Amino acid sequence: MPSPSRPSAVVLLSGGLDSTTVLRLASREGFALHALTFSYGQRHLAEVEAARKIARAEEVVHHYVVDIDLGLFGGSALTTRTEIPKDRDLGQDGARGTIPITYVPARNTIFLSYATALAEVTGAADIFIGVNALDYSGYPDCRPEYIAAFERMANLATRAGVEGMTKVKIRAPLIDMSKAQIIELGLSLGVDYSLTTSCYDPAPGGEACGRCDACQLRRKGFAEAGAEDPISYAGRTADRVGGPT
Amino acid sequence: MPSPSRPSAVVLLSGGLDSTTVLRLASREGFALHALTFSYGQRHLAEVEAARKIARAEEVVHHYVVDIDLGLFGGSALTTRTEIPKDRDLGQDGARGTIPITYVPARNTIFLSYATALAEVTGAADIFIGVNALDYSGYPDCRPEYIAAFERMANLATRAGVEGMTKVKIRAPLIDMSKAQIIELGLSLGVDYSLTTSCYDPAPGGEACGRCDACQLRRKGFAEAGAEDPISYAGRTADRVGGPT
Repeated sequence: MPSPSRPSAVVLLSGGLDSTTVLRLASREGFALHALTFSYGQRHLAEVEAARKIARAEEVVHHYVVDIDLGLFGGSALTTRTEIPKDRDLGQDGARGTIPITYVPARNTIFLSYATALAEVTGAADIFIGVNALDYSGYPDCRPEYIAAFERMANLATRAGVEGMTKVKIRAPLIDMSKAQIIELGLSLGVDYSLTTSCYDPAPGGEACGRCDACQLRRKGFAEAGAEDPISYAGRTADRVGGPT
Repeated sequence: MPSPSRPSAVVLLSGGLDSTTVLRLASREGFALHALTFSYGQRHLAEVEAARKIARAEEVVHHYVVDIDLGLFGGSALTTRTEIPKDRDLGQDGARGTIPITYVPARNTIFLSYATALAEVTGAADIFIGVNALDYSGYPDCRPEYIAAFERMANLATRAGVEGMTKVKIRAPLIDMSKAQIIELGLSLGVDYSLTTSCYDPAPGGEACGRCDACQLRRKGFAEAGAEDPISYAGRTADRVGGPT
């Protein structure tokens, strides 16, 4: 249970593999955890359910689930009826350099803005986000220079900037890690990846498709880490093979 | 009516005096206007109704009203049941240096984040916001250095940062103006201030209280501009006197 003397941290928790690993890292650092999840009109609402289970398992102080309608503006395959790309080549030349249609405009900026508000209200100086520049799948708002610019802005936006209070730190501990490294780290910390979900286009029952970019990156990560992915994919049982075929 | 060749701009429109003036400025520059208003659990929902009327009068291309629950986190008198301060001394030493309890944590950051998403989707390179550093009532996220930091972050967050597209500009044309100067400018552009509302704590019928910080700044502005405030205040008719008593 949280002790009142522990410092607070806000952790963005999507229900995916990366943010769940980050939640455990923040927990190990001794923070009182305020988890923040968005229900943003994404097609993969199974994420939000996964986040609830993960937050409970991690004994967070509070889990905020915020309803926001990013679909209102359109602009992403994740929030509209556009077909999710499957079986893309995510190799060296495949995924880099172009922004996929699953990119949601300004998503991390909106998420971090809410996190900044919550940090101010809870007195947290640390905001954790599970972005990752190596396996980032081409999203501009997963790059280190973006995170640094957000932190600078946030410290001008809030009481911290006026009253000389503790500065907010945007902490992205996975930013330079490969998916395999993240999985190895999480397993060493005892993260239960069976609670997580990564799929952009799960079956109605929540089962991962195994073929979208997110599933492919996850399966490749487990394969490279030499570990077994504990979730099951549509049409098969737990992914003993590892990488996509 | 909008012509397809006009560039688009996103304008944050609260329904208040400042943002209504900014909307007219953007209109005069020839932009196709995408107005963006937030219903954020504020006590003064009359703002949202005012914004709808103003957007119609200005013939915007689209008026987005986004529901967001800033009250979820608490932390401001504008979104909770805390009493709104009245009859505060807003003189030189009164309002500066401290942040009033009407400050909503990270509000402008959340608003500008949504505006950034909308700009990306509509292809707008210009985002207009009616912040104002002189009469800003002590809010940290109304300062020029904050606006500059947001712009820099936004250009790293979006496609613009990766693909070398047009950069987003955060335009705050009122930032160095006094309330009286804003009113003079707006009147010279034919802005109909009778459509606007500024009060933090209006009566159930929407009538302004005349005594909160926002009403005081507005009334002082009209008085200094030597103009008549066309709205009525609780307990009186249109404010012919000008400044607060």
